[in-house]
Amino acid sequence: MPMVLVVHGGAWAIPDELAPASVDGVKAAARHGSSVLKSEGSALDGVEAAVRALEDNTVFNAGHGATLNIDGEVELDAIIMDGRTLASGAVSCVKNIANPVSLARAVMEKTSHVMLAGNGANQFAESIGVNTVPTDKLVTEYEKKEWEKHNKYIAGVMEAFNTKWAHDTVGAVAVDSAGNVACATSTGGIRNKMVGRVGDSPCIGCGGYADNSSGAVSCTGHGESILKVTLARLILSHVEQGRSVADASQLSLQHMGERVQGAGGAIVVSPSGQWAATFTTERMAWAAAEDDVLWFGLNPKEKLKEKLSQ
Amino acid sequence: MPMVLVVHGGAWAIPDELAPASVDGVKAAARHGSSVLKSEGSALDGVEAAVRALEDNTVFNAGHGATLNIDGEVELDAIIMDGRTLASGAVSCVKNIANPVSLARAVMEKTSHVMLAGNGANQFAESIGVNTVPTDKLVTEYEKKEWEKHNKYIAGVMEAFNTKWAHDTVGAVAVDSAGNVACATSTGGIRNKMVGRVGDSPCIGCGGYADNSSGAVSCTGHGESILKVTLARLILSHVEQGRSVADASQLSLQHMGERVQGAGGAIVVSPSGQWAATFTTERMAWAAAEDDVLWFGLNPKEKLKEKLSQ
Repeated sequence: MPMVLVVHGGAWAIPDELAPASVDGVKAAARHGSSVLKSEGSALDGVEAAVRALEDNTVFNAGHGATLNIDGEVELDAIIMDGRTLASGAVSCVKNIANPVSLARAVMEKTSHVMLAGNGANQFAESIGVNTVPTDKLVTEYEKKEWEKHNKYIAGVMEAFNTKWAHDTVGAVAVDSAGNVACATSTGGIRNKMVGRVGDSPCIGCGGYADNSSGAVSCTGHGESILKVTLARLILSHVEQGRSVADASQLSLQHMGERVQGAGGAIVVSPSGQWAATFTTERMAWAAAEDDVLWFGLNPKEKLKEKLSQ
Repeated sequence: MPMVLVVHGGAWAIPDELAPASVDGVKAAARHGSSVLKSEGSALDGVEAAVRALEDNTVFNAGHGATLNIDGEVELDAIIMDGRTLASGAVSCVKNIANPVSLARAVMEKTSHVMLAGNGANQFAESIGVNTVPTDKLVTEYEKKEWEKHNKYIAGVMEAFNTKWAHDTVGAVAVDSAGNVACATSTGGIRNKMVGRVGDSPCIGCGGYADNSSGAVSCTGHGESILKVTLARLILSHVEQGRSVADASQLSLQHMGERVQGAGGAIVVSPSGQWAATFTTERMAWAAAEDDVLWFGLNPKEKLKEKLSQ
């Protein structure tokens, strides 16, 4: 079976000064996730490793470098899902956790629940010995400045997104040598969000979905719009009805634009190794490791490649 | 256009001693919601009114009379959704709120977000002047005893559900005279759940979904299973492909049983007024107001009726 791993670093109007670091970051994360797959890791191991790399990279809005909420605090959301069993774990509004994707995996593997929120998620983290980090360690100077700017000038979330001040979400999808698919998504949410705001990322079928019978998806973009159309599930519904992963993504993002005026992006992989990286925002940093090729892009219709093994 | 309003009081092994009060409760809620529709209320007004009635009735696991989490506290989840615009509001893990469905509606109407969790949801409630109630006021003697019993005898949530100690979720769906559909779902979750556990109820596409192009659904049953198959969205996907609301519900619940070994129930209404109340648990209390008839049932294949106007 072909092994494929695709990552995204968020669909938004990525400014030129962040472009090179964003592209380098998704390429490095795809390489890392792909090396896990090639060392006999499962699709689940691959997407977790790739998303951890993105969470650890301060250029992306997840883990270190996440956006701040209206109170100037970091509240993180993440999901992971195993297409083999539909097992899933998610955390929302969790604080002081450097790698929420791994805490989401612990929810999946160590509890009988699917999602834990807020203090409860932090209590669980403590009970299983997950290290916490001081909030300051997750906050970058860049995000602190953006937070101050928002407080002065921007009235609402939709306005923030439409004025292209969003900073969005990371994710990964993979199919392993056994044909199992998995997805993972992680985010700090939208800048200056209300305390307790839960976006699409941790919501199953919205920020991500994985089912061996159709494929795996990770979404990014205006979270409230993605929620309203349950974007990940919508894309896979089209795949189930015979559409290619590229057509299914395009159709679903177009529907989201028409029905709720929202822009975003998605990465998809099918159990047979078909994949797509699609977006309706100005840019989305993405990279895909397939055979010995690393594909990547940032601007619409851009599809560059280089050798994976270097 | 035909106006229809359907409610459920949860799909589970309702014990005989709770059966009459459960049936009376859903009938009263359906009458109440229906009267709102007939007084030119929207589908949204109708489902909110019906669910408030169920939340206020201590026989159901929502609002007053909700189940307790492992710490003996009440944490409530709710969602409401407008099929006209796909606008949606949800709260998860909220405390000291008597009518979470109305708080969910406020999230939809007064914020740019879709879901607020935990402390953030409570902060929002305070900011808009929603009255809080002391935890004790939401806790019934019945649930306090069940909590103690669980602490002694029951190891996990899945076991609780399989041993039929669950106590589940309320919901309503409606179509109004303009052909707009809406859904609402509200719950205390599963008995002795972990602190911060979010079930299917507040998750869009899982505990509920409403879209004028297909219909409105409210789900109940084993929350983690409903999440894994995004049950509400799955049912409406089948409707979109031409299935009747009854067949779509049956097929989706069957899929949930086969794929993730979960039981549950769903109520569905289409924009043209077709409706269904379907379950794979032992019982589900439901009632449907249609024209001048009140349909209701509790056991499989039971469909009783009486005059709506009395």
